Amino acid sequence: MNTPSQTEDQSSLIADAVMQKAESAAAAFRKVSALKKAAFLDAIAVEIELLGKTLISCANRETHLPDDRLLSERSRTTAQLRAFAECIREGSWVEASIDTAIPDRMPTPKPDLRKMLVPLGPVVVFGAANFPFAYSTAGGDTASALAAGCPVVVKAHPEHADTSELVSGAIHRAAKKTEMPPYVFQHVRGTGFELGQALVMHPHTRAVGFTGSFAGGKALFDLAQKREKPIPVFAEMGSVNPVCMLPEAMAMQWESFAAQYLGSVTSGMGQFCTKPGLQIGFDNADLEKYMGALGKAITGTKPAVMLNPGIAANFYKRRTESLAQKGVQLEAKTGFESGEREGTPSLASVSAEHFLNEPALHTEVFGPWSLIIRCRDKEEMLSVIGKLEGQLTATLLGTDRDLEENPEIVEAMCRLAGRIIINGVPTGVEVCPSMVHGGSFPATTDSRFTAVGLSAIKRFVRPVCLQNFPKHLLPEALQDENPGKILRMVNGEFKR
Amino acid sequence: MNTPSQTEDQSSLIADAVMQKAESAAAAFRKVSALKKAAFLDAIAVEIELLGKTLISCANRETHLPDDRLLSERSRTTAQLRAFAECIREGSWVEASIDTAIPDRMPTPKPDLRKMLVPLGPVVVFGAANFPFAYSTAGGDTASALAAGCPVVVKAHPEHADTSELVSGAIHRAAKKTEMPPYVFQHVRGTGFELGQALVMHPHTRAVGFTGSFAGGKALFDLAQKREKPIPVFAEMGSVNPVCMLPEAMAMQWESFAAQYLGSVTSGMGQFCTKPGLQIGFDNADLEKYMGALGKAITGTKPAVMLNPGIAANFYKRRTESLAQKGVQLEAKTGFESGEREGTPSLASVSAEHFLNEPALHTEVFGPWSLIIRCRDKEEMLSVIGKLEGQLTATLLGTDRDLEENPEIVEAMCRLAGRIIINGVPTGVEVCPSMVHGGSFPATTDSRFTAVGLSAIKRFVRPVCLQNFPKHLLPEALQDENPGKILRMVNGEFKR
Repeated sequence: MNTPSQTEDQSSLIADAVMQKAESAAAAFRKVSALKKAAFLDAIAVEIELLGKTLISCANRETHLPDDRLLSERSRTTAQLRAFAECIREGSWVEASIDTAIPDRMPTPKPDLRKMLVPLGPVVVFGAANFPFAYSTAGGDTASALAAGCPVVVKAHPEHADTSELVSGAIHRAAKKTEMPPYVFQHVRGTGFELGQALVMHPHTRAVGFTGSFAGGKALFDLAQKREKPIPVFAEMGSVNPVCMLPEAMAMQWESFAAQYLGSVTSGMGQFCTKPGLQIGFDNADLEKYMGALGKAITGTKPAVMLNPGIAANFYKRRTESLAQKGVQLEAKTGFESGEREGTPSLASVSAEHFLNEPALHTEVFGPWSLIIRCRDKEEMLSVIGKLEGQLTATLLGTDRDLEENPEIVEAMCRLAGRIIINGVPTGVEVCPSMVHGGSFPATTDSRFTAVGLSAIKRFVRPVCLQNFPKHLLPEALQDENPGKILRMVNGEFKR
Repeated sequence: MNTPSQTEDQSSLIADAVMQKAESAAAAFRKVSALKKAAFLDAIAVEIELLGKTLISCANRETHLPDDRLLSERSRTTAQLRAFAECIREGSWVEASIDTAIPDRMPTPKPDLRKMLVPLGPVVVFGAANFPFAYSTAGGDTASALAAGCPVVVKAHPEHADTSELVSGAIHRAAKKTEMPPYVFQHVRGTGFELGQALVMHPHTRAVGFTGSFAGGKALFDLAQKREKPIPVFAEMGSVNPVCMLPEAMAMQWESFAAQYLGSVTSGMGQFCTKPGLQIGFDNADLEKYMGALGKAITGTKPAVMLNPGIAANFYKRRTESLAQKGVQLEAKTGFESGEREGTPSLASVSAEHFLNEPALHTEVFGPWSLIIRCRDKEEMLSVIGKLEGQLTATLLGTDRDLEENPEIVEAMCRLAGRIIINGVPTGVEVCPSMVHGGSFPATTDSRFTAVGLSAIKRFVRPVCLQNFPKHLLPEALQDENPGKILRMVNGEFKR
């Protein structure tokens, strides 16, 4: 299977054909019951599992991710699909609200008003290079959009297009087995920017989900905002995931922190959007010991092939650029020779003063790289945090006393990101109701939403209010009898 | 008090001074308890009431709205402030969610994760000309942003800047009495576009609320998306509020519909964003009777002074333009002479065929005007609905049989708008949990939100996830004990 490259004209034709079908599917899909939609999501999980070794081998060939990692990512993907199935089966996610009429209210009668969330319409999804399953074809964006009731068009990631095609086949079989309307899911391939652009610009496209680079996400966002009718784009675009290392904790735990952060910086060759890229500490003996231990461990870490040639090239470009900045010192790198397309696990350091003056150091180096920032004092640490842009995560390593004595640092870190971690590592994203995988620009294009966790569904729905509807026209979620026993707000009180 | 006009340089200086203060207020305001914030909102309502006749006279002088209308709008505004106070006192709006740790989970432990909504930061509000109280200085945007915990900067509407100043004084007094941080609310005046632009572009501005014309809202939206860090703009920009009149209902109720729609089209000189601007019916004798009755009533309706010279001029421009379109026929107009700046209540009609070919007829004529579209058959009615853009409201007049026999029409209307009304009028917007005052572009810039009703608060907040936080650092809403007894999701189950 080869991934075709299209001209602008061809792209327009393909996008138009696909989006017309998606639009026709939207009308039918809206009428599919929650139970049937849930069965569809469950069936996708089963069909993905049925692909067995074929899928894992294909993904391994295309992404060079090892089998165990791919197997656990597959589990996460199917668990995610099943969690959304459970969520829509339970039903409360529609945020149903009922305010009953007060016909004799003075001076004017109060009408009957009922509200719930409904799907936006066709969603275009661009998957991530680094998660060929969990953030790609049947990943979080697709699962949440389908759960919301939106038809999905996936633009296959060109670097794992065959894996994408296999997963797409699984989704198509699941759709057929559970009698979904035709074209509820479509899959297109293309290497250039043209096809993606044509999909985002098509009038039938109602929302976009994207995971990837800042350049890619921002370009799609800008396009979508320039449409005659702008549409929401949720792009998750990367993060340096700063870690603030407070003094008492570092004195007591530098050794265990070093062991933890070795894994967080280098596992998967650092190709996680939550990899800790900046570690901000106080310039003292404990920091030296921490760097020594982490550096030594990095020296012993073997290089591995990165996801694709583009990502490897970009890693070396950004690594070289960072090392060339004034005051940046390479603290350690792998003691093994890196082969072609392999990353070079590396640790560098820089003084806060130099960091503050070098914007090139403030943005992500995607790969096995972390930069330690040495601060003279608390003021300097606060200045460093103040220079950072919106992040997916922000981590604090501190004892209770550290945290108590540095409330400004705790607060500044809390403002920075969608998820704040205390005494842990930022890598490892749970799929559960309390997860937030989001953050202020440029981490994402809209901090009001999350890409992971059940609330991800909120990106693809809008509220609608039905006024004075006769009983027989009300959707189940808004009927007096509440047949699904969902949680609703009735005349201002939450009830089941 | 005169409204100053500023140059671009002056505007930048003013915006910078104001937004620096707003940013400093944000840090302090985030720490204010829900009870104290609620007391502030309640106090604003009291201070507005204390302005008494002074406020009403000033608004009457600036907007020409009659006293009784202004009194009821003031009640709505204070009720809105009190509703948000009650909402944050109750506390469940933060959507708290807790997933407790599973330290022995295999293969990796599950961390403790807790999520809630937190304020975005400083919000800039542009009020509406047509609601000097309820959608202006202390209107829905300000009330919901303050309730969310965001400092607010109001750019006074130049056409009721003195009214705005009076209300601003009330907010300042309330802030002082309830010991709010300085600069939690600021009020600026300016006639040109420059000051508004500078406020939207300022890096400390985190969100924008706007109610007004398409041109104004779209310009601010475009600016905000072109910022180095784009920010959310919720602009409510108008709507033609289509009404579909189905045959059996028209045969039985044309007379009472005519009486209802007279009020909906002409009250307040049609200066409501939910005024029914298009009425789509079948070209038959019942429609003629309806037009006859409505037309006769309009002939007897007295003109009144419109909100301001610009709005009056625009009404006549758009009315003339509409009447000049091919096939448009003036059915009736007021029998009274219209004085300077007074509107001319008017009813026109056009065939669906002509309507479909004239985009000039598809957009809002703000003022006492409605256009009836005569359709030959159901197909034509569906084509007309299909041509319409996103709307705040869509109304169906139909008996149970009408609605049953025309499911495609019901569905097409439901897709079009944020609020769907059956057998009523679109004017009259309740402030309650089930209200949606929103809709697809160009009705608003983001159909996922509402400007009215308690959910309006969602525009100005983002979710944050706290991972592994020690108990003493958790905000009240996320503490195990749930001191506020708010509704939360705990390990996937809703609980109080």
